[in-house]
Amino acid sequence: MSVILDAIEAKKGGAALDDATLTAVVEGYTCGGIPDYQMAALLMAIRWRGMTYDETRELTRVMADFGPRYSFPDCVDKHSTGGVGDKVTLTALPLVAACGAKVAKLSGRGLGSTGGTIDKLEAIPGMDVHLPEDRFRRQVEEIGLVIGEAGELAPADRAIYGLRDTTGTVDSLPLIASSIVSKKVATGAGHLLYDVKAGSGAFMTTVEHARELAGLLVRLSASFGITASALVTDMDAPLGRAVGNALEVRESVAFLRGEPTSPDLAEVARDVAVRLLGLTGASDPAQAVTRALRSGAGYEKFAEFVRAQGGDTAALLNLPVSADIREVTSSRAGYVAAFDALGIARAALALGAGREKKGDPLDYGAGVEVLVQVGDRVAVDQPVARLYGSRQVEEATHLVRGALRVAAEPVARRPHVLAAP
Amino acid sequence: MSVILDAIEAKKGGAALDDATLTAVVEGYTCGGIPDYQMAALLMAIRWRGMTYDETRELTRVMADFGPRYSFPDCVDKHSTGGVGDKVTLTALPLVAACGAKVAKLSGRGLGSTGGTIDKLEAIPGMDVHLPEDRFRRQVEEIGLVIGEAGELAPADRAIYGLRDTTGTVDSLPLIASSIVSKKVATGAGHLLYDVKAGSGAFMTTVEHARELAGLLVRLSASFGITASALVTDMDAPLGRAVGNALEVRESVAFLRGEPTSPDLAEVARDVAVRLLGLTGASDPAQAVTRALRSGAGYEKFAEFVRAQGGDTAALLNLPVSADIREVTSSRAGYVAAFDALGIARAALALGAGREKKGDPLDYGAGVEVLVQVGDRVAVDQPVARLYGSRQVEEATHLVRGALRVAAEPVARRPHVLAAP
Repeated sequence: MSVILDAIEAKKGGAALDDATLTAVVEGYTCGGIPDYQMAALLMAIRWRGMTYDETRELTRVMADFGPRYSFPDCVDKHSTGGVGDKVTLTALPLVAACGAKVAKLSGRGLGSTGGTIDKLEAIPGMDVHLPEDRFRRQVEEIGLVIGEAGELAPADRAIYGLRDTTGTVDSLPLIASSIVSKKVATGAGHLLYDVKAGSGAFMTTVEHARELAGLLVRLSASFGITASALVTDMDAPLGRAVGNALEVRESVAFLRGEPTSPDLAEVARDVAVRLLGLTGASDPAQAVTRALRSGAGYEKFAEFVRAQGGDTAALLNLPVSADIREVTSSRAGYVAAFDALGIARAALALGAGREKKGDPLDYGAGVEVLVQVGDRVAVDQPVARLYGSRQVEEATHLVRGALRVAAEPVARRPHVLAAP
Repeated sequence: MSVILDAIEAKKGGAALDDATLTAVVEGYTCGGIPDYQMAALLMAIRWRGMTYDETRELTRVMADFGPRYSFPDCVDKHSTGGVGDKVTLTALPLVAACGAKVAKLSGRGLGSTGGTIDKLEAIPGMDVHLPEDRFRRQVEEIGLVIGEAGELAPADRAIYGLRDTTGTVDSLPLIASSIVSKKVATGAGHLLYDVKAGSGAFMTTVEHARELAGLLVRLSASFGITASALVTDMDAPLGRAVGNALEVRESVAFLRGEPTSPDLAEVARDVAVRLLGLTGASDPAQAVTRALRSGAGYEKFAEFVRAQGGDTAALLNLPVSADIREVTSSRAGYVAAFDALGIARAALALGAGREKKGDPLDYGAGVEVLVQVGDRVAVDQPVARLYGSRQVEEATHLVRGALRVAAEPVARRPHVLAAP
């Protein structure tokens, strides 16, 4: 019997895989000695039987240790499990950096719905996200804020994630947690905040599952010497008003410049920044974040960061978006009961803001702006969303209409930070 | 979403796959549109969640309908789930044919332990098992007994089985049953006996599992208009004395010629023959089989069949086996409590009687002859097995020694036919 067949048999029977087996399987698969189909069978067996904490921890270690590893013990980083209109990185991190914490972050591109943070940054003309390690390190020292593309780190996780994505094995708690934490361990920041999204537009649809994942992420991170904390935040509706790459950068800039923005974005961005700062041992982080926001120091830090990575800071104040605009109106009068994040995400994807498959070109100026939030009163024919972009506009209109639920009675808003496990 | 991803999600969630999905998945995989890794994930999800009877039946139909199908409604066939020293085909079928039933059988080659029926037949010099359909059909009419290699039939099952074999997804009751019955439906015999083996040397190690499989095989077969029956027979120890291709043909010839053979082989071969004959509606099949055995008609039919397929009937009476012979002795005195079939099979494999992997060359003259059976009294240094062959003899000796268990107290024999569901 081979290692992989032994591992499949053991996992099928509900046993835990030992360290040597996990090492051999991860290295064998990443280097090509174990074929896709055997790894797929093992991943489904893991999806079925789960993994103990010790197994998950070891799987994380093996994936983190494979390939290059950075080390930024003094730096902070955050990770979001992914949401619609999620601009927390673009807002909270400049605030934290403005308060003196050093931020070293590696991000990814998006698949489905809208782009990832890297895609959003590339909506800024001239912005360079491909930073060699020495430049990345220098920028941390000089500016205290750097965001680069997570290219070469954690190749084992990248290979395994690619297979999970096409074999129905993404939705496994130990696989999700080990994938996230292995990348974070390889990135090497000493302080981490996890923003675990819960709701229709998130990977975890219930608060219970999100809380469980949050707890596992913090525990795993701590075992690697990372000071970690987690928030569970709402993703039933998009975060803020904008969904789409340039649109989201515009909204982030507006927030950092103290312009009026939607309360959910303000609440989550602030909470993440305060907690992240708190992890570094800063005294009174809440006051420091408020000051960075009011003084404009947060925006200045953002602009400094954009400039350092070659971006056009003048363009920041009026980033181009699509001139093809259509308004979607409500067909009913009443109160907004839901504006489903998943539906909005699909509309943004249809308009060109995201990728159906790896390598698809993005329309950076495309997306959806939601004009109402849960609890708002709406009249018949009142505009509820604005669509930007020229691709599949009918489809997007249909999706946005389907995402809106209007109730006759007033609807209570729920808090945007749902839990802080 | 694609059909295969939908199917994986549905099965993961415990749902039954509908007919259209099963058709699309089986055809897509066999034709190459669905990659191995997605099929492997689905197979593991099936291994996890199981299949309803209706799903299993539909999967069987789709696999049977893909590719060519034969039709021999008047003929009988038997299927063994595979055992060690299993020479029931070589013994029971000539007896049945001698009693006037027409036998049309397609068989396979073996993987692991010893060869399949086709390999055993090829131990006879000149024997041709590659029969085009017209010649196969003519031999059924002229002689009433034909055994050919199941080459082109049920290609979907062949493709899927190949993947199961390398992904730990063989041991799934609905996948086992649909694989077996789809081949049988494609072969087209109207009357079928399933010999389901139970024990250490069999796929089903417990009588309960074997009985469950037997019931499912009969029910599925009946749904395709096949008159079917099943026996559960013992496979804790090898069947008969010989394990190895030429050795097994020799033992079969000896049995058919009325020479003294071990009681287990006699019991199982007889029982299978009687039941199979009974399925055709023959009156007093037990007496007919006894007569065919006593009169030598069974052996004559076997010789006629060998001759028709080009085999050297003169060689049948003294088939060459390896001249490299070593005896293994008992290190203890007492009673044989077990002579583990799996250990003997591994020894035969080490000696060259079987294939580690597809395409490995066989040593037709290699194998193991067991000299004692459960319940027999043994003395210290008494020979308990004879090894034939020159490959890995030390390893084989070690395996045979490990397979023998000697008890101080007398041991009761259990019957060889364990159940007739």
